[in-house]
Amino acid sequence: MARGFAYHRRVQFADTDLAGLVHFSMFFRYMEEAEHALWRAAGLTIARAGELTGWPRLAASFEFKAPLRFEEEFEIYVSVTHVTRKTMEYEFRIERGEIHVGDGRIKTAFVSKRPNEPMKILELPADIVERLRAAATD
Amino acid sequence: MARGFAYHRRVQFADTDLAGLVHFSMFFRYMEEAEHALWRAAGLTIARAGELTGWPRLAASFEFKAPLRFEEEFEIYVSVTHVTRKTMEYEFRIERGEIHVGDGRIKTAFVSKRPNEPMKILELPADIVERLRAAATD
Amino acid sequence: MARGFAYHRRVQFADTDLAGLVHFSMFFRYMEEAEHALWRAAGLTIARAGELTGWPRLAASFEFKAPLRFEEEFEIYVSVTHVTRKTMEYEFRIERGEIHVGDGRIKTAFVSKRPNEPMKILELPADIVERLRAAATD
Amino acid sequence: MARGFAYHRRVQFADTDLAGLVHFSMFFRYMEEAEHALWRAAGLTIARAGELTGWPRLAASFEFKAPLRFEEEFEIYVSVTHVTRKTMEYEFRIERGEIHVGDGRIKTAFVSKRPNEPMKILELPADIVERLRAAATD
Repeated sequence: MARGFAYHRRVQFADTDLAGLVHFSMFFRYMEEAEHALWRAAGLTIARAGELTGWPRLAASFEFKAPLRFEEEFEIYVSVTHVTRKTMEYEFRIERGEIHVGDGRIKTAFVSKRPNEPMKILELPADIVERLRAAATD
Repeated sequence: MARGFAYHRRVQFADTDLAGLVHFSMFFRYMEEAEHALWRAAGLTIARAGELTGWPRLAASFEFKAPLRFEEEFEIYVSVTHVTRKTMEYEFRIERGEIHVGDGRIKTAFVSKRPNEPMKILELPADIVERLRAAATD
Repeated sequence: MARGFAYHRRVQFADTDLAGLVHFSMFFRYMEEAEHALWRAAGLTIARAGELTGWPRLAASFEFKAPLRFEEEFEIYVSVTHVTRKTMEYEFRIERGEIHVGDGRIKTAFVSKRPNEPMKILELPADIVERLRAAATD
Repeated sequence: MARGFAYHRRVQFADTDLAGLVHFSMFFRYMEEAEHALWRAAGLTIARAGELTGWPRLAASFEFKAPLRFEEEFEIYVSVTHVTRKTMEYEFRIERGEIHVGDGRIKTAFVSKRPNEPMKILELPADIVERLRAAATD
């Protein structure tokens, strides 16, 4: 069974906290790094300077199964799931060798953001969704 | 209706990203800051140097309703909910004035962590749970 | 002798690393938080959304005298020093009670940043420098 | 002329701030990542869980020449310089292709840290210094 697009990462010293483990908030940054690597693999970039659109998060979650420690190397697998007309969800699985570190989800939308106006949710660009899905299942 | 213990915070410059808003991973740090302020309000501290116990996270989630921007001030409300013999869950609500910024949850356990042994989940110390609950409903 | 404008801070859990102390990069964020609090005390804000000017750093340094640990409270004192036509330097001193935690400096400039053009250093706005100096010596 | 050990990095989204550039405090994390990669290249690790020694920073500085932006790739070059009996200094140079992004220094010491005792500066282990120097000039 396919796990999705794979992104490789090593734990850096500043990722850890006084408990000697990676701080739980870092897993959300790890997921985002994998998401953006998927965009690059699809020939895309999620953010350009001065753009009047963006991809804010609607929801994010992670279930922690095993800790990560300084200098450990691990894989983040990302898939595109649950696409609706206006929302897209990624699923993530983190593994360190044989060890299942945890699973997460990020739900995102596509918005216009003009200065001094509230952000407005737009329909997802179908070609971008298609390219991300293709890159995640190669 | 009670919202729980209130923690006040201001958005710092380094909390933001190139989209001009607070980075989504920061909301998990904001929740943790409120959690630790609740511990202090209960006359407790969640971590002491060299301790062989800890409170790792089992799960964490956040639903984003409205963005936060540089220098904005906001409140994080935290309650202790869903306590079982071995797990405790916090619920969080973030508000900026009248604006509902979002809601989150963190599920945690109490563990022993001896050097070179895997962490082992213990029963929650009843007195700590009781003091946190009392501090969150004052 | 005046120490400058005082900003109060508490060490948060995510500020620490596996050595059990505040990570050295955090002291640069602490200095910046004090700088921006000084701006607010002067009735100013250092950054507005969509602005075509900014205050990038030319240099930053810190000398570490004593560590900070989780939940400790401390003061950051900031002064405006060494102002030239195009650069302004802040000096910082961090103290925890009687303990001298360390000293730092940040050198900054005022720039215009138009889309697709390199940043261009401008003359410092004299009124802003004056208001910061006044707020730092009150 | 040798530039020292080279470490490759890409700017991640969470490294940026609302000015659209990498936050200045991140350059200190980039330097540290390069330092630790140098240790690994020398067959060493700078931190093991439960160790009663450590390598705290005495001083850190950076001079910013050009900004870094989201997704840009760059090199951090690190050398070991200015070794005394009790202190070791690294010099760093960051380049993005032909562009000189900036230069930094970190001065460190070797300490013993026993629970409930102040940290005590020890003599540098000569073999570690030698291996780092060798790895930085290969």
